[in-house]
Amino acid sequence: MALPIPAPASADIGVTGMGVMGSNLARNLARNGYKVAIHNRSSAKTEEVYTEHGSEGEFIPSENMEDFVGSLSRPRVAIIMVKAGAPTDAVIEELASRMEEGDIIVDCGNSLFTDTRRREAALKERGLHFVGTGVSGGEEGALWGPSIMPGGSPQSYDRLGPMFEKISAHVDGEPCCTYIGADGAGHFVKMVHNGIEYADMQVIGEAYDLLRRSLGLSPAEIADIFAEWNKGELDSYLMEVSVEVLRQVDAKTDKPLVDVIVDAAAQKGTGAWTVQTALDLGVPVTGIGEATFARGLSSSPAQRAAAQGFAGEAQEWNVEDREAFIEDVRKALYASKLVAYSQGFNEIQAAAEAYGWDINLGALARIWRGGCIIRAQFLNEITRAYDADAKLPLLIGDSYFYERIVDALPSWRRVVSQATLHGVPVPVFSSSLSYYDGVRSERLPAALIQGQRDFFGAHTYQRTDAEGAFHTMWAEDGRAEVQW
Amino acid sequence: MALPIPAPASADIGVTGMGVMGSNLARNLARNGYKVAIHNRSSAKTEEVYTEHGSEGEFIPSENMEDFVGSLSRPRVAIIMVKAGAPTDAVIEELASRMEEGDIIVDCGNSLFTDTRRREAALKERGLHFVGTGVSGGEEGALWGPSIMPGGSPQSYDRLGPMFEKISAHVDGEPCCTYIGADGAGHFVKMVHNGIEYADMQVIGEAYDLLRRSLGLSPAEIADIFAEWNKGELDSYLMEVSVEVLRQVDAKTDKPLVDVIVDAAAQKGTGAWTVQTALDLGVPVTGIGEATFARGLSSSPAQRAAAQGFAGEAQEWNVEDREAFIEDVRKALYASKLVAYSQGFNEIQAAAEAYGWDINLGALARIWRGGCIIRAQFLNEITRAYDADAKLPLLIGDSYFYERIVDALPSWRRVVSQATLHGVPVPVFSSSLSYYDGVRSERLPAALIQGQRDFFGAHTYQRTDAEGAFHTMWAEDGRAEVQW
Repeated sequence: MALPIPAPASADIGVTGMGVMGSNLARNLARNGYKVAIHNRSSAKTEEVYTEHGSEGEFIPSENMEDFVGSLSRPRVAIIMVKAGAPTDAVIEELASRMEEGDIIVDCGNSLFTDTRRREAALKERGLHFVGTGVSGGEEGALWGPSIMPGGSPQSYDRLGPMFEKISAHVDGEPCCTYIGADGAGHFVKMVHNGIEYADMQVIGEAYDLLRRSLGLSPAEIADIFAEWNKGELDSYLMEVSVEVLRQVDAKTDKPLVDVIVDAAAQKGTGAWTVQTALDLGVPVTGIGEATFARGLSSSPAQRAAAQGFAGEAQEWNVEDREAFIEDVRKALYASKLVAYSQGFNEIQAAAEAYGWDINLGALARIWRGGCIIRAQFLNEITRAYDADAKLPLLIGDSYFYERIVDALPSWRRVVSQATLHGVPVPVFSSSLSYYDGVRSERLPAALIQGQRDFFGAHTYQRTDAEGAFHTMWAEDGRAEVQW
Repeated sequence: MALPIPAPASADIGVTGMGVMGSNLARNLARNGYKVAIHNRSSAKTEEVYTEHGSEGEFIPSENMEDFVGSLSRPRVAIIMVKAGAPTDAVIEELASRMEEGDIIVDCGNSLFTDTRRREAALKERGLHFVGTGVSGGEEGALWGPSIMPGGSPQSYDRLGPMFEKISAHVDGEPCCTYIGADGAGHFVKMVHNGIEYADMQVIGEAYDLLRRSLGLSPAEIADIFAEWNKGELDSYLMEVSVEVLRQVDAKTDKPLVDVIVDAAAQKGTGAWTVQTALDLGVPVTGIGEATFARGLSSSPAQRAAAQGFAGEAQEWNVEDREAFIEDVRKALYASKLVAYSQGFNEIQAAAEAYGWDINLGALARIWRGGCIIRAQFLNEITRAYDADAKLPLLIGDSYFYERIVDALPSWRRVVSQATLHGVPVPVFSSSLSYYDGVRSERLPAALIQGQRDFFGAHTYQRTDAEGAFHTMWAEDGRAEVQW
């Protein structure tokens, strides 16, 4: 089928890259009444989308980049949805060389925020707006309403915002889209969103593993427990998904599907990015870190093979009060999840400080309530917490969440302690609890570490009772201290 | 004082960068009988070194780069000891533009291995050898015998190796220097060395903190315990250092110095690099990760201030058998430390695989026995383990170490469990134990994570009973599985 000749300068917005995510975003825009230009490197894909979905709204398909750009009304808005990295750079250049001052290029892929910052700066010099935009919700989200996190210039949001807000998910009538902050801010918060998602998935996994190994429950029984939990403060999409997965029976073997799936978790890198960036910023995101490493561990066949048969403890143990234990696990899950969120928001605060972004954390939690993978009931409370104190230094210090932590604390300690004694790995449960006990500590052994560093490397230390940097002359008699 | 006119083409080796590390390396070389050319960007520094230490051996000072290069015998060997990053690039270019084919530039700074790889490739095209070299041992090590880890070409080691081996630390008559592997291998293993150092320092810190909070022991009493431990399998330089630091009394306040030092641990980045690189390689280095994050946590004043007064448990608790508890802590420390080393060596193995380095891990452990910060008795056993099986997939799986882990296991579990119940943070103790329990697990909840990922993102999973990638049609009736 030949495509119609594209009408010049008439589309509200364009999408290049007709993979599932790109075509679904285009269809979402068209269904919402926008005239959408579409384009793909190989035009067969464009033709396919136009043929199959052309009736869903107004599409203007183009066979080449020249026509695609020409079909956009001014100021032009073109969304790129191609692979992150070099392919994105290539498409940006193809677009930019055909655009005019004031036009807007939107990257909706999973780009690393430092790439976005570089691209934004380069295009600004050419008079173009570049909007790195985080889009969460996968294929279904893109089609029916994702959570959308645009960065870039505030001016670009004037043009872009209304369209994105319209096609985004809505919760309580509010769109799951808001302007995040300058240059790479949108991609940054999307990255942290994914990091939190890693931690969230892992704590659910730890709860499942623990219930199964301790009480000998079946996946279906645990699904029932999770379904119960999903009615309360743990209400979330990922809990819903877990119930579905645990209930699934494999048709071929009649076993629970989860027992047929190879237990090696894959990753596409955004969890690792979150941790790597946190390390650059000096922010401890131990929950996300342990969750990412847990995936790495599961996918280390040589190490796992070498450790099979290593001594451990009894896998099932005698739990006196099973109901109480299940409730303990629920609270441990909730508290650990809170810590992961608290740490993730601290990472965003640190980046906002480092890169000069004015990020409204309450609004951010609000747009995560729908469309995205970590959507959950309790994001309402996170919004309330940051709306009440925009600079809240510690989410778990907000009185609402702190009360819940205190309530969970004895359960949390019992669960980690029991898992530890019985040989069930709970890396995020225990790491999150260590974080809680660390951050509340009046004194930490970091003082000894500073002493060690001064001893072997003359790195100096600070004193609690005086300003300045001090060095002890360790090797000398009397060990005088000098101020540097 | 004017410097003597440098004799042309006569020095065995040269050092540019007369900071403490650079001048100490030069003095070490001169003391060992080598004729050493010295140079610094500002020649006042060169003059100072020559004036103060000229009598220690044969130095050839140069006021400028032209004379410095001219004073080296061929093939020239010039060591750079300046700040990592742009300053190193600048000096490399100054040297390279004056050198000839076959000459050798050695970077002894703490460069990131990816920079070293880039530089090596660029200089190879110009016919020059570039040797990224890890040097550990701080200022004293540089002067009296460091641990030296040279990468680069094997040919460059023919010229460089004998000098480096001579000036390095020696243990049992063996030099703490060996050829590590091509291009960035030397800087890579030095980075991991530092990461292990972070973990080693943190586990000592956790043991100290735990003994203090649980038993109410004073720093001096803990120093005595550590001094005892240092006579056994925990014998190490860092344990020695810790004893010294904990025994130190502050002259001004008469308090233990460790109580006067601000408990905010600083870092210079190599711990973070180790973790960031491990994330790229997919290797779980949870011990180093938690240790690095623990430093970040300690240096988060806003978060710590917000958490002061958070609920916890009694800081001192009733330990029935104090001697037994102390021994439990010792074993927990030892086991956690082993895990950190095991993970660090796995990271080196993964990098060797990724970058085509042929690294002899037994020889590497051997050269860490002296000169460097993590020097320790038990490195002899690590050498034995890798000499016996060069491809050992898991250090803690070596029978010697595995026996010690099994012996420590009940203690390790008790300590983490007790610390957890009583609110003392032990992030590396507990994370290392979770790793042990994770890697030995026959099945991990990663299977549930793979199910979740397939549910919300169609990421597919593998089956335990068939080849290929599978996807469940979750949304459809019957939920057929398709092979992708």
